[in-house]
Amino acid sequence: MMRADIVIRGCTVLTMNEIDVIGRGVIAIKDGKILYVGRETEAPSFEADEVIDGQGKIAMPGLINCHTHIAMALFRGIAEDKELSTWLRETIWPLESKLRPSDVYYGAMLGFLEMIKSGTTCLLDMYFHEDMVARAAAEIGMRCVLAPGIFDAGHKVLGRALLRGAMKFVREYHGKGGGRIHAMLGPHAVYTCSPDLLRRIGEEAAGINIGVHIHLAESESESINIRKMYGKSEVGLLNDVGLLRSNLVAAHCIHLSDEDIHLMAKNNVKVVYNPVSNMKLSTGIPRIKDLLNAGLVVGLGTDGPASNNCLDMFETMKVAALLQKALYRDPRVLPAKKVIEMATIDGARVLGLDNIIGSIETGKKADIILIDANKPHLTPLYDIYAALVYSARGSDVDAVIIDGRVIMRGRLIETVDEREVMEKAAGVSQDLVSKRSLRESLVRRLIKRLE
Amino acid sequence: MMRADIVIRGCTVLTMNEIDVIGRGVIAIKDGKILYVGRETEAPSFEADEVIDGQGKIAMPGLINCHTHIAMALFRGIAEDKELSTWLRETIWPLESKLRPSDVYYGAMLGFLEMIKSGTTCLLDMYFHEDMVARAAAEIGMRCVLAPGIFDAGHKVLGRALLRGAMKFVREYHGKGGGRIHAMLGPHAVYTCSPDLLRRIGEEAAGINIGVHIHLAESESESINIRKMYGKSEVGLLNDVGLLRSNLVAAHCIHLSDEDIHLMAKNNVKVVYNPVSNMKLSTGIPRIKDLLNAGLVVGLGTDGPASNNCLDMFETMKVAALLQKALYRDPRVLPAKKVIEMATIDGARVLGLDNIIGSIETGKKADIILIDANKPHLTPLYDIYAALVYSARGSDVDAVIIDGRVIMRGRLIETVDEREVMEKAAGVSQDLVSKRSLRESLVRRLIKRLE
Repeated sequence: MMRADIVIRGCTVLTMNEIDVIGRGVIAIKDGKILYVGRETEAPSFEADEVIDGQGKIAMPGLINCHTHIAMALFRGIAEDKELSTWLRETIWPLESKLRPSDVYYGAMLGFLEMIKSGTTCLLDMYFHEDMVARAAAEIGMRCVLAPGIFDAGHKVLGRALLRGAMKFVREYHGKGGGRIHAMLGPHAVYTCSPDLLRRIGEEAAGINIGVHIHLAESESESINIRKMYGKSEVGLLNDVGLLRSNLVAAHCIHLSDEDIHLMAKNNVKVVYNPVSNMKLSTGIPRIKDLLNAGLVVGLGTDGPASNNCLDMFETMKVAALLQKALYRDPRVLPAKKVIEMATIDGARVLGLDNIIGSIETGKKADIILIDANKPHLTPLYDIYAALVYSARGSDVDAVIIDGRVIMRGRLIETVDEREVMEKAAGVSQDLVSKRSLRESLVRRLIKRLE
Repeated sequence: MMRADIVIRGCTVLTMNEIDVIGRGVIAIKDGKILYVGRETEAPSFEADEVIDGQGKIAMPGLINCHTHIAMALFRGIAEDKELSTWLRETIWPLESKLRPSDVYYGAMLGFLEMIKSGTTCLLDMYFHEDMVARAAAEIGMRCVLAPGIFDAGHKVLGRALLRGAMKFVREYHGKGGGRIHAMLGPHAVYTCSPDLLRRIGEEAAGINIGVHIHLAESESESINIRKMYGKSEVGLLNDVGLLRSNLVAAHCIHLSDEDIHLMAKNNVKVVYNPVSNMKLSTGIPRIKDLLNAGLVVGLGTDGPASNNCLDMFETMKVAALLQKALYRDPRVLPAKKVIEMATIDGARVLGLDNIIGSIETGKKADIILIDANKPHLTPLYDIYAALVYSARGSDVDAVIIDGRVIMRGRLIETVDEREVMEKAAGVSQDLVSKRSLRESLVRRLIKRLE
């Protein structure tokens, strides 16, 4: 008789490793980790504090959202159907200039609620006041990688101050929250950071062995500007300043030459594909098939909830597949199983966490979601990967376990008061929209400089 | 004091007519129709059999799915990530050749469950055994337009027999089900119907004043073939045979020249945009902005659940907007409000039913859905159209009323046993996949002829 904290019985298990699918499986969890996964008929007996009935359910690794700005949930729906630069400069940046730390806390909590309710258990976030995101994550029980945003936009002093603040955050939070909080440095983009700042960020990250998260080749016009200013591509510039390494997580990667792709693959850079945001902001379509063929590891992201407008990774999986099929005019491109890999084990590789998450296997952290397959839209169920990518919805997620702890059960969040979070976040959002701040005028001046 | 059957109080009402949005609204329903809609403060007193509390909910017209093959829910997930013609010829057509009427009944019932649970209240279906779809619709309480599929593929006798059967269906079912069942004729496509058959269909439809539903310019290779065979486009051919009229509902409309678009607009042809299916089968992207600019009325469809793989019109609305933004590289294209119009009032225009459905206004049929806005992903809520298109999910639909009857309440279907339908449909599907039939070999021969 083996001791376990939680045992899940009778579920179909998508392991996302070479074992593939287990028909009637058992998962045992102890001390936050997976103690056992296998067929029910071959499993040892367990004495468990809690037994979860998994019949009619699919267990899979929690989804990993590799690029978001979670607190932007506060800005959802404020400026719609607008062009990227107009959207950023007229609405988003001025609003962000007014953000107080407590606003970010509520925005993050609101975003976490939505993420957990649609099956996401880990995210990479780039934003301001990441200490507040860490606090919210610790409270709700989320796993995350947090990258404080850094930029200088021509203001050297500002860039250095933000880098110092980010390093302070890294020292204080990396490895905290019971090991659930990780840190990266988050230079916003090549067009908002000077080469000098980028070089310093690379050196600091290498010094303490953490990752770097950046927006890369998202806007075509900014990519063209960079080429005009520096005589090389964004990728070429990142290579020059020493950032083009295996710990670099590059979001978007739309406007790349074959040479760029080759250089990124040579350096094992990690890529994040954000199909919904790319379509909504019309920034272009990344050539994911070519990136994968070049050997690059690609994860999926929702991007911020203000340019999506949600954080649902099930939707992102489906649109990820659809958009590549449409781009290459070939329905065989990006088949369902590969998409699920991108949302789980490949996402873990992108974050450098594939030794602890991304698959259901003994010894890994127990980040597991249970999907209720007893739904009309999941009937009949022939191809489990296709069902999860093309038919399942975030709302089919019935239970969420992170680090061996049940965070959601029967679609009810167990760790925070959902209604209270929604009310607070709605109030905070309204305040931001209605008030002006001193900092806002500074940011408006910074924006002018960029133009 | 006015008598009503149902009164919904305190909801935000999206009327989808010139009144736009009513903040705290009241809707009164009597004898299947909308008796009153307006502000709570200005409403008369009602004595009602049932009062529904609409606080925190959004009431909008039920969504209209203008193109599907609903019983194909039975084939969901059987052949994935395949090319259109391979998918049709190797999997779908052989399976369809084995379909018995009772299979279609269960397939339709399964599809209706999914549709109602995601807010659809009316559909245009093209398939076999539409009498069985009508039976299922009558039982569950759905509103529908049913178009028995007609084709000859070189077999004149087959085409005439199918047309005769379709006309028999029209006589028996048009206007039945308490007026909820409407009929059209459904020539499959230009490449599967001879010009002679198309002409006869047009004459029959005109004779009894009903609509015609067809697949138009979906496959680029078939469009090219038609041009080779007849020296004109699919649209040109339809014009020649007299089908290019205001009662023609053309699904897909991807491979069109500017001349085709002009000709369609001149004849007020109705268009159905199926973004998810078009992407999944990689058949190309229709130029919806150009079609709208030409003055054409465009509705939305999911297409069959085997090429989508779901029937969720909320997803279709979002992808409809995203795909046009990506195609035109302009985030301002197809704004949220226009998308909602396409899914409601424009859909009603496509079906020729805008005098009875598509908006919430006095005298129209009470086809209304209530959306629960108390969700993290719908918080904050600034722009109601954007929230519904970009953030809302089918699973946010809390209640569905069709023809003044509550079909779903608190997400529970009231008219049929959901679990029983799922079990029966899954069984029927398994039978179809495992058995072979006599008819299958005939269809395989027909397919060979087409090749």
